[in-house]
Amino acid sequence: MSSSREELKKKLMDIEDTAEVTVRFSDVDAGGIVHFRNYLIYLDDGFVHLINFFTCNAPFKDLVHREIFFPVRKVDIAYEHSAIFGDIIVVKSKIVHIGNTSFTFYHEMFRKENMQLLAKGNCVRLIVDGKQSKLLNILDFFSSCML
Amino acid sequence: MSSSREELKKKLMDIEDTAEVTVRFSDVDAGGIVHFRNYLIYLDDGFVHLINFFTCNAPFKDLVHREIFFPVRKVDIAYEHSAIFGDIIVVKSKIVHIGNTSFTFYHEMFRKENMQLLAKGNCVRLIVDGKQSKLLNILDFFSSCML
Amino acid sequence: MSSSREELKKKLMDIEDTAEVTVRFSDVDAGGIVHFRNYLIYLDDGFVHLINFFTCNAPFKDLVHREIFFPVRKVDIAYEHSAIFGDIIVVKSKIVHIGNTSFTFYHEMFRKENMQLLAKGNCVRLIVDGKQSKLLNILDFFSSCML
Amino acid sequence: MSSSREELKKKLMDIEDTAEVTVRFSDVDAGGIVHFRNYLIYLDDGFVHLINFFTCNAPFKDLVHREIFFPVRKVDIAYEHSAIFGDIIVVKSKIVHIGNTSFTFYHEMFRKENMQLLAKGNCVRLIVDGKQSKLLNILDFFSSCML
Repeated sequence: MSSSREELKKKLMDIEDTAEVTVRFSDVDAGGIVHFRNYLIYLDDGFVHLINFFTCNAPFKDLVHREIFFPVRKVDIAYEHSAIFGDIIVVKSKIVHIGNTSFTFYHEMFRKENMQLLAKGNCVRLIVDGKQSKLLNILDFFSSCML
Repeated sequence: MSSSREELKKKLMDIEDTAEVTVRFSDVDAGGIVHFRNYLIYLDDGFVHLINFFTCNAPFKDLVHREIFFPVRKVDIAYEHSAIFGDIIVVKSKIVHIGNTSFTFYHEMFRKENMQLLAKGNCVRLIVDGKQSKLLNILDFFSSCML
Repeated sequence: MSSSREELKKKLMDIEDTAEVTVRFSDVDAGGIVHFRNYLIYLDDGFVHLINFFTCNAPFKDLVHREIFFPVRKVDIAYEHSAIFGDIIVVKSKIVHIGNTSFTFYHEMFRKENMQLLAKGNCVRLIVDGKQSKLLNILDFFSSCML
Repeated sequence: MSSSREELKKKLMDIEDTAEVTVRFSDVDAGGIVHFRNYLIYLDDGFVHLINFFTCNAPFKDLVHREIFFPVRKVDIAYEHSAIFGDIIVVKSKIVHIGNTSFTFYHEMFRKENMQLLAKGNCVRLIVDGKQSKLLNILDFFSSCML
């Protein structure tokens, strides 16, 4: 791997992103707690926030409008405590592995009020060019879209 | 309007479709009742069921895969009683108006167990060819896709 | 109606609330536009924001945790333009009618970027005390919970 | 462990449940494929179906109405292929581990048309008595609620 690719990789893996999301009434189920599927939404918010932070010359939404997608290949979550309606959730996100055509995010979600850990987990994503229906190389993609 | 178009219009408006949908745990909110947005999902199920019934030579899903969409222009719903988790909802659907580029569905949703009316309302839809980004004429569309 | 109730009613109906919500990737459907059910979520965000603004001594979330709910009795929406992923939506909300046990909100949703009107509509809500399973009088409720 | 508890455990772990769910238009995202969070909904459908099959003298919905909840403690999913609108998904579910206060389900989801594996994963759940806010012992719960 060339040194510029090593540097890019290091730069990507050094990002420590923090996003916030507020729990909606409709996120909560009949048990009075956030339904477990919705943590995938919060984790998605963390992912978008991190990518937006990084690719400041092409906001994430423009990537999507150009049919660049980031489908999920694997996800695992451990639920520690329950969020309830009105909680502000702090989503901390890091890239912990970069392979050829997949990369892995580690997310932690905290209740902002007391920074209690609510959930944590990993999410493996691909980068797909929808127009050409092909997988993109992770570092190639970021070297072309970075400032 | 030619007589064949009149007949097609009558045929469309004579359909009385009945679909069923079961309330999921995740459809219910912290108040223990189905969140009001989810009735739009059930109404959508009724719509898809009716269209599937009618266009039997091109299932609805194939239309969507060909980028034919049915965006909603207006919707109104009156909520009469609350559905709860596990309820089976009977969705009755009828086309009550056919204009040039929009048509109106009337949906009633009942709790199957006692046929109590849960919600009722109208939904005005368009037909859009996504590839050409153009509105389709309603009767033209159905005359071309019917058996 | 006593003059203090008249004043409260006027005060409630003078509120012009503005909230913002960002369109998630998961809000968008296969047609590339926000699915019509999700405008009910944005409208719900506007409602919560308005109530939070008003009842500053009891945030909305505390009401819900005390089992005070605001079920929707009727909703109507006209969809004017389509929101897409990444849009910031400005939700403007007003109370336009206050009856004994129901009150009506009028919401307008704009794309922040160009203030294009995306959707507008009315939403009739009740106030329910879930513990006692009873409807509350609207003005009684707000006179007891206001600063 | 007494022999009747061993038998109950074996009986629970011998269940091989199969449920079906149809992909809605609103389950699909702007990439044209089912959004990854929705597989948690399908997995939830498999769970409810299995529990319903087993506890035939107390349908799952009655448990929920008595405030017995099954919160998720952990979930992991590997996504193999993408479901699209209109697909019928076959959800196969098994209990693969029973501890004191948690039990683990293994779910596989297939596209019915060609039985292609779409996703597979494990889900660890608890049983909570919401009225008493306490965790229930898994085998105690099932021995009391079985036929």
